[in-house]
Amino acid sequence: MNDGDLAQLVGLRHKSFIVRIKQGGELQTHRGIVRFDDIIGKPWGSRVRSHLGNPFYVLQPALGDLLKELPRNTQILYPKDIGFILIQMGIGEGQVVLEAGTGSGSLTSAMAFAVGNSGKVITYEAREEMQKLARKNISRLGLEDRVEFKLRELTAEQGFDEEGVDALFLDLPNPYDYIHHARSALKLGGFFGSILPTANQVSRLLLALRQFDFAFVDVCEVLLRYYKPEPERFRPVDRMVAHTGFLIFARPVLLENTNDSIDDLEEGGEEDIED
Amino acid sequence: MNDGDLAQLVGLRHKSFIVRIKQGGELQTHRGIVRFDDIIGKPWGSRVRSHLGNPFYVLQPALGDLLKELPRNTQILYPKDIGFILIQMGIGEGQVVLEAGTGSGSLTSAMAFAVGNSGKVITYEAREEMQKLARKNISRLGLEDRVEFKLRELTAEQGFDEEGVDALFLDLPNPYDYIHHARSALKLGGFFGSILPTANQVSRLLLALRQFDFAFVDVCEVLLRYYKPEPERFRPVDRMVAHTGFLIFARPVLLENTNDSIDDLEEGGEEDIED
Amino acid sequence: MNDGDLAQLVGLRHKSFIVRIKQGGELQTHRGIVRFDDIIGKPWGSRVRSHLGNPFYVLQPALGDLLKELPRNTQILYPKDIGFILIQMGIGEGQVVLEAGTGSGSLTSAMAFAVGNSGKVITYEAREEMQKLARKNISRLGLEDRVEFKLRELTAEQGFDEEGVDALFLDLPNPYDYIHHARSALKLGGFFGSILPTANQVSRLLLALRQFDFAFVDVCEVLLRYYKPEPERFRPVDRMVAHTGFLIFARPVLLENTNDSIDDLEEGGEEDIED
Amino acid sequence: MNDGDLAQLVGLRHKSFIVRIKQGGELQTHRGIVRFDDIIGKPWGSRVRSHLGNPFYVLQPALGDLLKELPRNTQILYPKDIGFILIQMGIGEGQVVLEAGTGSGSLTSAMAFAVGNSGKVITYEAREEMQKLARKNISRLGLEDRVEFKLRELTAEQGFDEEGVDALFLDLPNPYDYIHHARSALKLGGFFGSILPTANQVSRLLLALRQFDFAFVDVCEVLLRYYKPEPERFRPVDRMVAHTGFLIFARPVLLENTNDSIDDLEEGGEEDIED
Repeated sequence: MNDGDLAQLVGLRHKSFIVRIKQGGELQTHRGIVRFDDIIGKPWGSRVRSHLGNPFYVLQPALGDLLKELPRNTQILYPKDIGFILIQMGIGEGQVVLEAGTGSGSLTSAMAFAVGNSGKVITYEAREEMQKLARKNISRLGLEDRVEFKLRELTAEQGFDEEGVDALFLDLPNPYDYIHHARSALKLGGFFGSILPTANQVSRLLLALRQFDFAFVDVCEVLLRYYKPEPERFRPVDRMVAHTGFLIFARPVLLENTNDSIDDLEEGGEEDIED
Repeated sequence: MNDGDLAQLVGLRHKSFIVRIKQGGELQTHRGIVRFDDIIGKPWGSRVRSHLGNPFYVLQPALGDLLKELPRNTQILYPKDIGFILIQMGIGEGQVVLEAGTGSGSLTSAMAFAVGNSGKVITYEAREEMQKLARKNISRLGLEDRVEFKLRELTAEQGFDEEGVDALFLDLPNPYDYIHHARSALKLGGFFGSILPTANQVSRLLLALRQFDFAFVDVCEVLLRYYKPEPERFRPVDRMVAHTGFLIFARPVLLENTNDSIDDLEEGGEEDIED
Repeated sequence: MNDGDLAQLVGLRHKSFIVRIKQGGELQTHRGIVRFDDIIGKPWGSRVRSHLGNPFYVLQPALGDLLKELPRNTQILYPKDIGFILIQMGIGEGQVVLEAGTGSGSLTSAMAFAVGNSGKVITYEAREEMQKLARKNISRLGLEDRVEFKLRELTAEQGFDEEGVDALFLDLPNPYDYIHHARSALKLGGFFGSILPTANQVSRLLLALRQFDFAFVDVCEVLLRYYKPEPERFRPVDRMVAHTGFLIFARPVLLENTNDSIDDLEEGGEEDIED
Repeated sequence: MNDGDLAQLVGLRHKSFIVRIKQGGELQTHRGIVRFDDIIGKPWGSRVRSHLGNPFYVLQPALGDLLKELPRNTQILYPKDIGFILIQMGIGEGQVVLEAGTGSGSLTSAMAFAVGNSGKVITYEAREEMQKLARKNISRLGLEDRVEFKLRELTAEQGFDEEGVDALFLDLPNPYDYIHHARSALKLGGFFGSILPTANQVSRLLLALRQFDFAFVDVCEVLLRYYKPEPERFRPVDRMVAHTGFLIFARPVLLENTNDSIDDLEEGGEEDIED
């Protein structure tokens, strides 16, 4: 790898560090100091040793790894949720995506990664410190050209500056208060998403989505179960993350009249899932 | 939408159809015929009616929707698995990715979507009929320029033509027979992935990965639990997909010598997952 | 087995029938008629054949099998939930247990089974037809001496006739309306349980339990995942029951004063679960 | 409660202790000393205070609580698994049940609880220290009259002394080595059960069960998901136990001939589960 690369150093017991490799630089760990000059010029996947002789692998980090190691002030989204959000909302090359709030920037990063050089993520955050951290995190991943940061809160009166965006994600505790704004900012048939920890919040969001003519509402949870990678003793690990949040997806549609309501479509929801 | 667009028509009970909109074309359903001329020129998210008066929404399909509706001869990967695979293997703009076998092309499509215009997916398939179907599926999504199809089986002796690829996915019943080929084709520190339905297959694959110096092995399952989107009666749906496959991820690394083995790194696996 | 025994006949594809074996009797199935005279005198676990030559095994039914085959008018509790309820509420020999409503009698049967000859289950049901079915089901299992049936609804004013019972289970859609009655009927420190399908109902019940000084509240779900019993192809089955209900357990306690509240105890709930 | 009662004392943050209440006795905790003379004569569900003023509730322990608090040298079975085992194997009043090995006696206790005064549990253990602990645990619960302890290991040649038992549970790492003994000890059509942590062990057990004419084989896992009992913020807890073991159940049956094989019955397994 080369001077300036972002690298993942993985030591004993899978202890992992994301670092920018610089000439003369080093990583201090409680298993010893790793000198970057020992790394530069070697291929990815090589093993180096700390000054105490402990081995470290040098890997090119995947998006999932980068997101897990992101410096944060807040709860961040897990890769298991992010992967499903990107697929479900069709986030891809060239799209324009809105987000509020930015938080530590984990979903922002993943969306910026997915929209490519020709796409754009516009992200709102009310807290200056938080935005600063997210900016730093996203710059570190080299994705800052794809992200537009806005420092401002949403209020009942003031929503997004944008219109006609492809997708919009609300990572806020009270998304139900801004659904009319989401409706205005999204193009018709666009993709709305949100994540919420409690059932009570989901109920409130479902009411708001119904009120503002969103249809094709899906609510789901992604559960990730790891296994011990032992060929002769293959089994699930003992403990797992049981809950990060409920994911909610919906699409703004045009209703011709209110009698011929969305509920006709909604009623089939479960059956659809089952097939 | 316009002549030539790929659209998702969703009728009562969430019955969904992916169609290419063409002037003069139509979709025949048991709820009546939808004429495409009624659709052309309307915004996404509009509602049209079949000749029997049944409502259909016209939506821009997300990748997840496209993959679910893909014509298929084989079991295809689910969006829940695909989303996690893309994140975990860091599949993104500009990468070169290898796959075997192509199958109906669902993962091929998703990977082609993720690598963007500057990336490439090279996919091997032994059955001509299957490759033909996959070609058709991928062309339909407009992703054919990013995919190179190879019609050939892997054997113990003959592996991939490529070297130094960023990521490689084996969607075959016996990936353990080709791990030496995977090792040769991947760049050091690249991303290996596979999916297998049974525990016995996973055990065999884990042995092969160990034999050919792959480290950082993760085995996991992604479970997706849907909820009824009823604000006053919020609850999980009654039944769910319980198993699609075990996902296996690993990275080819350089070992200096065999005494100082990979197992030192592996032992920490579970702890790492837990934190 | 003998004349008068309750037996489980299991035919091809695990199709199962619970029958009372009587001389001269028979079971008609679409795989032929099984004559009970062919069964009487044979050991449990034997195989007999229908008049069409199809094999049937004759097994002594376990409680779980009996409950699954219970004739029913309503949703019944699943063995996975019943087993956990009995353990969690300490239902055992010699106890006095209250239940409302009886429904088809599945939990009633299980509780009657568990309290033994010296215990008693008193069960309330408002619908005469339902009680009649439950009576028949419980008599069929030979447990009628342990069960007292009451035909009456609970109202805001009129609760249970009993006091000081060991355990009390509410299998009603609105248990939150009767928590003051549950408090009066249970002995201090006794076991309260309920099952509810929706998160909204659970929230209402939690409020009511708090209001009437119940502590040590646990809410959980029991998920049962089956595997294909194939030694060479061991894997989870494709689909599973995703939700039957949320189980809620609590204990009525004595609070000395309201300032020194139950909440001090509650806050540790999750940690306790984690250890 | 009275002198001699077994009580559960629950302090702040749900810290729980199972103790035998004796005149003049006390419990020392890091939240202060609880004097049993303060407890004797009070009703269950009362609150007492330690000498430091910290509150403790005094509850009658349920079987689930007793099992969780059992002093142990080994991994013990969880209540979630025990409850399902008892239901699935039909363990109830008056039955004779075999077990190997005893371990710390948690399943032994639960089975002794379920068979009542007229039933019996016979349990084999090879390690003297372990049996001693189990004896102590079972005596503490007052269930010693229902349990017969045998200090002896099973070998390929020497199996159980008993015949015709109703149910038999193997809680051993290598149950597949003793299936012929299990077959001899169980009555025809009786209930066989086992629990194993790894998929590899399950595969071996499935082979052995097939070899010795066991049918109606079920393999499953019980997952328990707790929720935060907060009415306004109802949601799953963050982390959960992901795996304790795979449960395996089977019944010894009589096969008339080998051509007309068990497999005909087995093939329907999944479908049966699904319906």
